[in-house]
Amino acid sequence: MEDGFSLKDSTIGIVGLGLMGGSLAMSLKGKCARLIGYDTHLPALEVALSKGIIDHAGMLFPSPAGRGDRGEGKVNLLILATPVPSILQLLHQLQSTNYQSPITILDIGSTKRDILRAMSALPENFDPIGGHPICGREKLGLENADANLYQNAPFVITPLERTTQHALRIARQLVSALGAKYIEMNADDHDRILASTSHLPFLLASALVRSTAHDFAPLIGPGFRSTSRLAGTPSSMMLGILKSNRDNVLSALSTFQEQLARIKLSLMAEDYTALEDILNQSQADYLALVDG
Amino acid sequence: MEDGFSLKDSTIGIVGLGLMGGSLAMSLKGKCARLIGYDTHLPALEVALSKGIIDHAGMLFPSPAGRGDRGEGKVNLLILATPVPSILQLLHQLQSTNYQSPITILDIGSTKRDILRAMSALPENFDPIGGHPICGREKLGLENADANLYQNAPFVITPLERTTQHALRIARQLVSALGAKYIEMNADDHDRILASTSHLPFLLASALVRSTAHDFAPLIGPGFRSTSRLAGTPSSMMLGILKSNRDNVLSALSTFQEQLARIKLSLMAEDYTALEDILNQSQADYLALVDG
Repeated sequence: MEDGFSLKDSTIGIVGLGLMGGSLAMSLKGKCARLIGYDTHLPALEVALSKGIIDHAGMLFPSPAGRGDRGEGKVNLLILATPVPSILQLLHQLQSTNYQSPITILDIGSTKRDILRAMSALPENFDPIGGHPICGREKLGLENADANLYQNAPFVITPLERTTQHALRIARQLVSALGAKYIEMNADDHDRILASTSHLPFLLASALVRSTAHDFAPLIGPGFRSTSRLAGTPSSMMLGILKSNRDNVLSALSTFQEQLARIKLSLMAEDYTALEDILNQSQADYLALVDG
Repeated sequence: MEDGFSLKDSTIGIVGLGLMGGSLAMSLKGKCARLIGYDTHLPALEVALSKGIIDHAGMLFPSPAGRGDRGEGKVNLLILATPVPSILQLLHQLQSTNYQSPITILDIGSTKRDILRAMSALPENFDPIGGHPICGREKLGLENADANLYQNAPFVITPLERTTQHALRIARQLVSALGAKYIEMNADDHDRILASTSHLPFLLASALVRSTAHDFAPLIGPGFRSTSRLAGTPSSMMLGILKSNRDNVLSALSTFQEQLARIKLSLMAEDYTALEDILNQSQADYLALVDG
């Protein structure tokens, strides 16, 4: 029964056991037959094995003589859970790997256009599909992983032209098993929206902390803490995202700069009626966007 | 024993039973002899009385024939816990009120220069001192008050030239009773620093939500939620703060705009080495400021 895919009978491989991949493994524990973890950082693999977060530690790229699945059993779903540049590199390497059996491959990178382009070049035995769970925290690594990280988070799925109904079914079952919210859209829309809702806020937080003298620290309260939180995210995570979404991020930055300039102008002109209007609209925007 | 002030034997009046004043009353409950609440919004007074948050509801401005304390007993410490413009107005009204006995008066407004200027014009029987607890949340009102709001928060005290040692002792006892951190500084430094650490973040959050289309809401995650949170603060609270700290806020805005422009330029020029440097510095700034 080829299309009767059932998550609970499947073997899932997770590449990258950091915050996202580690949390994924913890959340999938007991909901699939077997979890195989892959990571070039061996201590993460050891911790994941010793804590029972994964069932097996795998080698994604064995010697040319080896088989892709190295006898750990057929992987039904391979999830790429590394930063964007590393996902691109993995997809490039997978192009010349001869996995013998068909395999569904899902990435959970933060941008989608470049990744889907790389996925479209994969050999036929791969059934690729893009994904992006919108959750996380500024502290990365397996030590910050949390089985509930995906709970109630929007999980965007971006199919390719070649994506099969089978892969879509797997993606739906996965999102549902994680307790996340399934949202299907195309990669262009995803990248344009995320530039505004994620990459821009990160840059604002970064510019804010750069603007703040360190000796102001004793007077920092919950407001600054909240606005600046994303600036704690390592550049290793963010640089590839900004690179692969440069056009949209620049456009979102320009829109923001215009809005901030409007606020500044009203304050410079002491036009408090105009300023009050903007702030009232902002509060309404906030309620509509976040707290509605 | 005139200087042996003891909070637990004192009568404290709190003007404004919103988030800040209400939380103050809840936190002081049982730590002073009597709490008198004042609010022009009668339902807040009724709720505060019925829930035992205050012991008495007072009238701050009785008919000219009345006495300032209206027989509720001598108020030792009067705390002004309303938005900045209302504190300025109250101080103006108090100038022509003849409270018969000496009274220490502390405000907890978010800017300090204008308020200290108004305080310096109070009659001699007032012993004024400025204050600003750096805590709060975007949802105001007594219904969001919390006895633990002040716990571990920095509480800035800004004395005037005329502030007595007696008033300073009261302020120290109060801050300690709230479990907050006592920080003494002058009003100029306070307003300059808070422009960066509080008023700027509010404006960034406001410009961010103004830059974000409402139909992006389903893709909003914890990052955007955190960066935009302050935009939920009502303009009634923020407008007076921005007005009374206009010079410092404009200066903080300019500094921020320069930092954001540097980030944008490096991304435009595809100078990822420069961008990585900025982002690494930002992460270090964040750790030094917030998470150190």
